[in-house]
Amino acid sequence: MSGASGSLRSLGEEMWKKTDKANADFFVQLYGAFIKSMLKELEYDPHRMTAAQLKYTREMGSRLADEFFAKSNLSRCKDFRECADVLAKVAFKMFLNITPTVTDISPDSKEFSLVFEEDPLVENVVLPEYLVRTGNIFSYSGGFYTGCILGAFETIGINLTIKVIKDKLLGDDHTVLKISFVSLKPESRPPKHPGDEDDE
Amino acid sequence: MSGASGSLRSLGEEMWKKTDKANADFFVQLYGAFIKSMLKELEYDPHRMTAAQLKYTREMGSRLADEFFAKSNLSRCKDFRECADVLAKVAFKMFLNITPTVTDISPDSKEFSLVFEEDPLVENVVLPEYLVRTGNIFSYSGGFYTGCILGAFETIGINLTIKVIKDKLLGDDHTVLKISFVSLKPESRPPKHPGDEDDE
Repeated sequence: MSGASGSLRSLGEEMWKKTDKANADFFVQLYGAFIKSMLKELEYDPHRMTAAQLKYTREMGSRLADEFFAKSNLSRCKDFRECADVLAKVAFKMFLNITPTVTDISPDSKEFSLVFEEDPLVENVVLPEYLVRTGNIFSYSGGFYTGCILGAFETIGINLTIKVIKDKLLGDDHTVLKISFVSLKPESRPPKHPGDEDDE
Repeated sequence: MSGASGSLRSLGEEMWKKTDKANADFFVQLYGAFIKSMLKELEYDPHRMTAAQLKYTREMGSRLADEFFAKSNLSRCKDFRECADVLAKVAFKMFLNITPTVTDISPDSKEFSLVFEEDPLVENVVLPEYLVRTGNIFSYSGGFYTGCILGAFETIGINLTIKVIKDKLLGDDHTVLKISFVSLKPESRPPKHPGDEDDE
């Protein structure tokens, strides 16, 4: 695995190098403005905030997946374990220049945790007190990553559940997501690389 | 001027190199999600959209100005003409990796146009038809730049008026802003570089 894992890491580096860039602080501030605007729209209700955050980030995740496969030239993953590595080492690297750690992989490889030692979205962010108290409902950065990942995997035909189990903004050491495979969508399947026919 | 202008360009390059980066497409998509969310919140009213867009981008501009002066180590501009160059060649380069062109400078140097040959925000964006028809009110990218610039200049004590006079998303060849100096805020003044005392 370490060979494949190493080459995914290089692929992530390579895709990050090729990508058009914007200032990360600007990105973080734009996200802050977005959340602030939603808070007002949704009358500061953390349940509705979480639902709205999920809706918008899921749509983003779906577009990011299209872009990812258009640019990465990757064939479909062999298994969910490989999906986890591609997500962490190639996709997160390509879009946010971070590489969260894949850990706590379940024996059947259908569940893993994603640990964000670095969480660029929470730099210089202070949550309003009432949102801190409801942190188990609303997660500022964890919810963002959750929606993007759910949307991206749905696009390739994989249904997941994701739980934010640690949140850096609520005082935890890292932000941690627990990601569980649920099902393959019967009507769709992971994208195939054009040169893949002979694998059938 | 060309010497100073060239060194501003190098400073922009240098600050861009030092900055933490995120994927520009991700930034553009996040902005799209933001606008979509605001459209719903504001019942698709272009007047209210423009006001809200201005509010949030102005706040962003103010924070960006703080960051800009913290990182660039630039002393205050000698005149508004120099402000225009710093904005185009250092600030836009540092935050979005683009360098709009300063043109049509008025004889008294209190007015100039900023031409965005490249407008990363409008890549792959299609505006809903009713917003295209009201393009003179709502400008998807021009309004974003307008708010950021207004907020940034307010932070250093300069009041401006800005008009979007061309909009790439509405079929114009470029996005163009006309920027006019209005007044210095009496209670504030442009930030001073710590080593500047002897200029007094």
